[in-house]
Amino acid sequence: MAVVRRLPKYQRYLSELIKNGVQKISSRELSQKIGFTASQIRQDLNNFGDFGQQGYGYNVNELYKEINNILGLKRTYKIVIIGAGNIGQAIANYTNFEKLGFKLCALFDINPKLIGLKIRDIEIMDIDKLGPFIKQNSIDICVICTPSSQAQKNADIVSESGVKAIWNFAPRDLDVPDYVLVENVHLSESLLTLTYRMNEPELLKNNVMFDRKNL
Amino acid sequence: MAVVRRLPKYQRYLSELIKNGVQKISSRELSQKIGFTASQIRQDLNNFGDFGQQGYGYNVNELYKEINNILGLKRTYKIVIIGAGNIGQAIANYTNFEKLGFKLCALFDINPKLIGLKIRDIEIMDIDKLGPFIKQNSIDICVICTPSSQAQKNADIVSESGVKAIWNFAPRDLDVPDYVLVENVHLSESLLTLTYRMNEPELLKNNVMFDRKNL
Repeated sequence: MAVVRRLPKYQRYLSELIKNGVQKISSRELSQKIGFTASQIRQDLNNFGDFGQQGYGYNVNELYKEINNILGLKRTYKIVIIGAGNIGQAIANYTNFEKLGFKLCALFDINPKLIGLKIRDIEIMDIDKLGPFIKQNSIDICVICTPSSQAQKNADIVSESGVKAIWNFAPRDLDVPDYVLVENVHLSESLLTLTYRMNEPELLKNNVMFDRKNL
Repeated sequence: MAVVRRLPKYQRYLSELIKNGVQKISSRELSQKIGFTASQIRQDLNNFGDFGQQGYGYNVNELYKEINNILGLKRTYKIVIIGAGNIGQAIANYTNFEKLGFKLCALFDINPKLIGLKIRDIEIMDIDKLGPFIKQNSIDICVICTPSSQAQKNADIVSESGVKAIWNFAPRDLDVPDYVLVENVHLSESLLTLTYRMNEPELLKNNVMFDRKNL
């Protein structure tokens, strides 16, 4: 797993430590909580600066602040959700993202019955207005929650409108220009990973093809 | 990325090929679609049996059937959803899982206003009934969609009731006995991976810390 996958996990654990009033933590203690090895932790955190002192531990607040910076959380992000179905609505209703600095500006859908409705005071708009809305409001991230069949078409509109990042929940891969980043959440694939592991032959299980705790 | 992460993606692409009436495909053609290298594909698929002939390609139907077997899709799975909030309801409404063989048997919640309501004819039950329900109905997989603060308590009940697999959407890691498998979907971590990449210094970008296409 690349460091880019571990950093958000450090962020989450450090925010919990801060909530619990912890000010210092050693790589060994952090290792016990987070499940990465202490040497992995030292190596990761050394990549980004000097936050620890030998035999003294990491300054939790400083480390948290710096990891937030590295994760790009110094600023806020304007997002829109494309597809106001089950997953789109669930994400719109999930207020934790707002606390991290993600501001939902609109939802878009193709269904006339949904257009004009509001979720947490945020309007569901006609998908025809997506391109102009993105440009006028300098949207940073588009969350694609449409059915598979509509996803590429919307990714094209999003890319042409100058958005640099897509968070994709549609169960297909997207073809986008090089300047657009895509992060996929393929729920079916996640679920099938679980059934694979449930049915894994004992031989493979003992062979430890992957680290079970850190998947 | 371990083979366990690539298999569900093969499954998805092969199901599309079948829909489109494709009967044979070479590792090179599959590589162009799926984004893994042809040699990676040959290596992966050789792990599981002999599905291709040199210069002839893979038999799409046979390969699809075998990958479904390996992923444990020969059988059906009884699941319950714990936490009937936004994410829990979205998953309950997502009928694609049913097509793959996952049968939703009940939802559980702590909120008296939700208990007794139905989603697609499936009842939301009192969380107090979770343990007995799991045992009486031989539930295979529990989907945890509760807030972080309730997740461990429910994971304990689930584990004690003999369930072998948890699909966890709560934003925390779970402490479970060795015989229980956990697959996490940490949405915030996925989103922060995206903002990290949006803010990644050019130096790191050129260094290619990870394969952008296959994240």
